[in-house]
Amino acid sequence: MERIFHPEGVAVVGASREKKKPGHLLLYSLVRMGFSKRGAVYPINPKAESILGLKTYKSLKDVDGRVDVVIITTPPETVPQVMEECVEKSVTACVILSAGFGESGEAGKKLEEEILKIARRGGVRIIGPNCMGIYCSAGRIGFFPDQRAGDDVRRSEGRLLNGDKVSFISESGSIACMFYRMCRSLNIGVNKIVSSGNECDLNATDFLQYFGEDPTTEVIAAYLEGIKDGRRFLELAKEITRRKPIIIWMAGITSQGSRAAKSHTGALSTKENVWNAICKQTGIIHVNNIEELMDMIAAFYFLKPPKGRNVAIVSSPGGPAVSAADACSRYGLQLASLEEETKKEILRKIPNFGTSVRNPVDLGFGAVEDGTYETALSALMDDRSVDAIIAIGGAPTFVGKSFLKVEEFAEEAAAVWRAKRRKPLLAVLPPHISSEKPFEILRDAGIPVYATPDRAAKCLSALCSYAAMRR
Amino acid sequence: MERIFHPEGVAVVGASREKKKPGHLLLYSLVRMGFSKRGAVYPINPKAESILGLKTYKSLKDVDGRVDVVIITTPPETVPQVMEECVEKSVTACVILSAGFGESGEAGKKLEEEILKIARRGGVRIIGPNCMGIYCSAGRIGFFPDQRAGDDVRRSEGRLLNGDKVSFISESGSIACMFYRMCRSLNIGVNKIVSSGNECDLNATDFLQYFGEDPTTEVIAAYLEGIKDGRRFLELAKEITRRKPIIIWMAGITSQGSRAAKSHTGALSTKENVWNAICKQTGIIHVNNIEELMDMIAAFYFLKPPKGRNVAIVSSPGGPAVSAADACSRYGLQLASLEEETKKEILRKIPNFGTSVRNPVDLGFGAVEDGTYETALSALMDDRSVDAIIAIGGAPTFVGKSFLKVEEFAEEAAAVWRAKRRKPLLAVLPPHISSEKPFEILRDAGIPVYATPDRAAKCLSALCSYAAMRR
Repeated sequence: MERIFHPEGVAVVGASREKKKPGHLLLYSLVRMGFSKRGAVYPINPKAESILGLKTYKSLKDVDGRVDVVIITTPPETVPQVMEECVEKSVTACVILSAGFGESGEAGKKLEEEILKIARRGGVRIIGPNCMGIYCSAGRIGFFPDQRAGDDVRRSEGRLLNGDKVSFISESGSIACMFYRMCRSLNIGVNKIVSSGNECDLNATDFLQYFGEDPTTEVIAAYLEGIKDGRRFLELAKEITRRKPIIIWMAGITSQGSRAAKSHTGALSTKENVWNAICKQTGIIHVNNIEELMDMIAAFYFLKPPKGRNVAIVSSPGGPAVSAADACSRYGLQLASLEEETKKEILRKIPNFGTSVRNPVDLGFGAVEDGTYETALSALMDDRSVDAIIAIGGAPTFVGKSFLKVEEFAEEAAAVWRAKRRKPLLAVLPPHISSEKPFEILRDAGIPVYATPDRAAKCLSALCSYAAMRR
Repeated sequence: MERIFHPEGVAVVGASREKKKPGHLLLYSLVRMGFSKRGAVYPINPKAESILGLKTYKSLKDVDGRVDVVIITTPPETVPQVMEECVEKSVTACVILSAGFGESGEAGKKLEEEILKIARRGGVRIIGPNCMGIYCSAGRIGFFPDQRAGDDVRRSEGRLLNGDKVSFISESGSIACMFYRMCRSLNIGVNKIVSSGNECDLNATDFLQYFGEDPTTEVIAAYLEGIKDGRRFLELAKEITRRKPIIIWMAGITSQGSRAAKSHTGALSTKENVWNAICKQTGIIHVNNIEELMDMIAAFYFLKPPKGRNVAIVSSPGGPAVSAADACSRYGLQLASLEEETKKEILRKIPNFGTSVRNPVDLGFGAVEDGTYETALSALMDDRSVDAIIAIGGAPTFVGKSFLKVEEFAEEAAAVWRAKRRKPLLAVLPPHISSEKPFEILRDAGIPVYATPDRAAKCLSALCSYAAMRR
């Protein structure tokens, strides 16, 4: 596996000069990732002389250097021949992007068996077919043109400063692509991604094991449409969750979803009740859609699990404070009884106009003044009865351009977070704010941001449960 | 009520030249709404000559013309005196923004009783106290500087073309403000908003009745922290839901939320199980947070209820198609069995590369070609076995700037919607897309957009249930 994600040489079979072709895209992605800083790329194309400035080769046999990974983008019927060449060349693994295998009916299934036979005979491993490829930040390998090595992003943008900690397994190629984009926009550093496709050889369980052992992966996430290797998956998950969180979006677990999964990746899906039981037994954190997935990853990426379930809510808009209290009840979180010193500190500095220092701490129109969130958050960071804080911004205000107190909120929360990172802090900002700026300020500071108090409370609760399980 | 939302004259007591003061903000909002096109504004301020170019008056008594609504922004202890003047002037209603009444303890409660006594004696109605005010698009009255009359938006931006159909009751002032902003960004036309605050006189039930009778209100929505007038509310809701949908976000229904609500608006909240029973009995559509609220309003604002629960899913990214099928199962929607003609039509025009014409219709990489979504959506609009369509965009693509097929998807969906608006069409686009453009294209065409298939399916299911209830 290490050789697959950190290869010395990568060949792209089906490399193309036509921009629309996967073979072009793949090559371009490797160039953008700066793979040449680590190893050699070999475009394989019998007709072209060079593509994207790289010397092409007529076939794999013509390549002299060591090739660990061969990415195959040619039509399905050509794949067995390419596989034979891979065996001859003793490559470590083939990443087969081509579709038209097990997911597409009987003929495809036979073809899939054939390539697997060749691979087994020659000791070559297969990722895919019907997949998008692999990404590794440190290995400088990628499969989509917007992907970058974490180091490059840190150098050029000064972002992803919490490190490349999240590795992702996806049985859907499009979700693998979207995942990277979303992590970037959320300032979450990705370690590795594997789009595992039909999983005719290496499957989600193998990647789970590898990510479990990989010391650079601290959070494991996955989009799955079923589990091929149930018992092993379960045992591995049980063991790994003691060391790092596993967050899984399992699709195809309803009757209609299962039929859809079958024609998508040929997966035999898991039933919903079985899956729920597996999660309970293993401690897997399960989510049901891409929003929940990203919400949860953000919490585990940015925050350390809290000591207990006592939460302080601080808000200027009153309505969202009430629904945050509702959300805490729903997700088994207690509103902390604040220390007297905390209440005094807040009232000392904040005008008493619609203010409440009970928990939720409602700053009311006081939050119109600068520094009120900072005062409250700082006092709550020092309060020993509080294990975690949910801070809600976005109150209407009479000053400024935006009429909503958002940028100031973000800046004050970021300042407190930089000074006193003592317990988890989750920010809530209403959706449909016209500017991205407040979200960026918070994320750049390393504070996860949620669209509603519900979403924040759900993630905080999962963090608490995870901490309790490991104790 | 008509006089309150369409007043002849409005006075602002506490009108101020200081930009930070509510009394300035209110006046400015009325100016921006173009209230002067309908009636006269009277700023009341004993010290200033004019504010924002409007002649001020020393007191209400000095105003000659008719005053229907008096907006009060002065400190709580001054309110009884102002109320006396309102009685003398025979105004229709006072909108009391001032806080420091029933929500703030015993003294405040007494003050609230006192002003109510004065109002009752003089036949003056009260909105608030501790509220933000009222908005009426046709009446050109508003309470926040970003608010505009629907006609002005249509004239200047060519938006809100589906009309000003949604009226909103909010016990939280900040949510009333946010609501308007969100509707604007979602291209949803607002009819009226009332921030009802402590509801010492006119309460949510009164506004429900009025919005129920108001022929220009087609969708009623509310944020509540309890119901003061339970039996009447229930009976009204039962009757109104036969004519128009009522969507309610009820907060403070958990033990911790209830305590928070009490210090926010002094509300005595409803228990969660009681509330669920009320919704079931009346047909109220209940939501739990601002995202669900806006999602649901968008569905009822843009779409007509479908004939049945048979849904077609069309997608290019395969993963989201699977989870859309899951979502349909979870929300009681059936995947339609497509007519043979539909399948043929799609296959005739779309390259068979990862394509599936079963339902979900998976366009695969075929969607890279222009016109594929249009072909598929158009065929599904004609298919008599399909009652509604969920269309999913955002597939990775090898062409274009964004690497995700989003703008083309939006444009093709909009084109079909303009030509064949035969059944509900809900669009799904993944969150964290860097450009707002595709969302705008869809919303300007009148297609609601959801971040996940789950959210789309939930709203579609509510539309179906509402249609079934009315049958």
